[in-house]
Amino acid sequence: MLALAVLGSGKGSNFQSILDAVRDKRLDARIVCTISDVADAFILERARRAGVPAYHVDCSPWKTKLEGMGEERVLELLREHGADAVALAGFMRIVKPRLIEAYRNRIVNIHPSLLPAFPGLRAWEQALAYGVHVTGCTVHFVDEGTDTGPIIAQRVVPVFDSDTPETLHARIQEQEHLAYPEALQWLAEGRLRVEGRRVFRD
Amino acid sequence: MLALAVLGSGKGSNFQSILDAVRDKRLDARIVCTISDVADAFILERARRAGVPAYHVDCSPWKTKLEGMGEERVLELLREHGADAVALAGFMRIVKPRLIEAYRNRIVNIHPSLLPAFPGLRAWEQALAYGVHVTGCTVHFVDEGTDTGPIIAQRVVPVFDSDTPETLHARIQEQEHLAYPEALQWLAEGRLRVEGRRVFRD
Repeated sequence: MLALAVLGSGKGSNFQSILDAVRDKRLDARIVCTISDVADAFILERARRAGVPAYHVDCSPWKTKLEGMGEERVLELLREHGADAVALAGFMRIVKPRLIEAYRNRIVNIHPSLLPAFPGLRAWEQALAYGVHVTGCTVHFVDEGTDTGPIIAQRVVPVFDSDTPETLHARIQEQEHLAYPEALQWLAEGRLRVEGRRVFRD
Repeated sequence: MLALAVLGSGKGSNFQSILDAVRDKRLDARIVCTISDVADAFILERARRAGVPAYHVDCSPWKTKLEGMGEERVLELLREHGADAVALAGFMRIVKPRLIEAYRNRIVNIHPSLLPAFPGLRAWEQALAYGVHVTGCTVHFVDEGTDTGPIIAQRVVPVFDSDTPETLHARIQEQEHLAYPEALQWLAEGRLRVEGRRVFRD
């Protein structure tokens, strides 16, 4: 059974989809701990309600990356709880090489676009402004770049003429909540093989 | 009825899908002429067989753009044949501002990826090398950039672990042959409204 740690900064809707999948036995994992860089993030409350150890880690003085003391503390918690893998769920900091190297191809993220289109923040707004007719979400391993790691799964979402950023984002999130637990289950089953940039499912 | 000119450099499989759609009355257009920068391109032979005026235009000394005398001759042919709009079908030259301004939002192209991902040459190989799990094709208006114009339609294609560039390209082309005539029919019906980068279908 996969020992999975979750890192997040916000409300944790993707974390909830992971918790639900574990409860429903669609995801063969144990959530060993949940860590947030935001003391009052709702993701920590979700963890507590589910009986998962929840930690706030102070990541100052940096605002957008996980480095130094905060990174050290996260690594310590991951080891303490025996985490095999890490799922980022709305974690708003860039993960730096030290953590990436410690968990190479064991840190997974979900991004609200069909990467490599629209990396970075508020991808659904970028997609709408660009005028694409389809977008979606991407589950990928985390590497040293921003949203550049090997892709595990992608799901497609149509963009409608009538869409606002809110309606499009909601439609993408529905697919995220299906894609993320499914991809984590493949990881739990040991079925994912990374060759260069490509991820094969054995 | 839309008076449509077609420009291409190769075998013209997208041109064939346009000819078939006109024949089957799925596309309310008349193909007024076909122009190629390659004297022995099969697209010209397809035109002749269909009774469409076929022209080779010498575009030297440039190898990758349509400028100068060649551009002049293309514009002359378009005017002579009363073309309302231009469909690029495997035309391997960059269209320059003079032609774009003469036919602003009346020149259409199809590209074998989900733009803005993988612009430029051999997009299906780029997609496979990047490791995406979905790709597709994009019908767009031509602007001054390379594959950057407002998007009219996109169709999605899965990428399989077993794919080679050839199998993936073939799967994308199937969707191109559906997407292109359909998008041209929207243009023929006068239903496309361009606002900034977005194309709305009234």
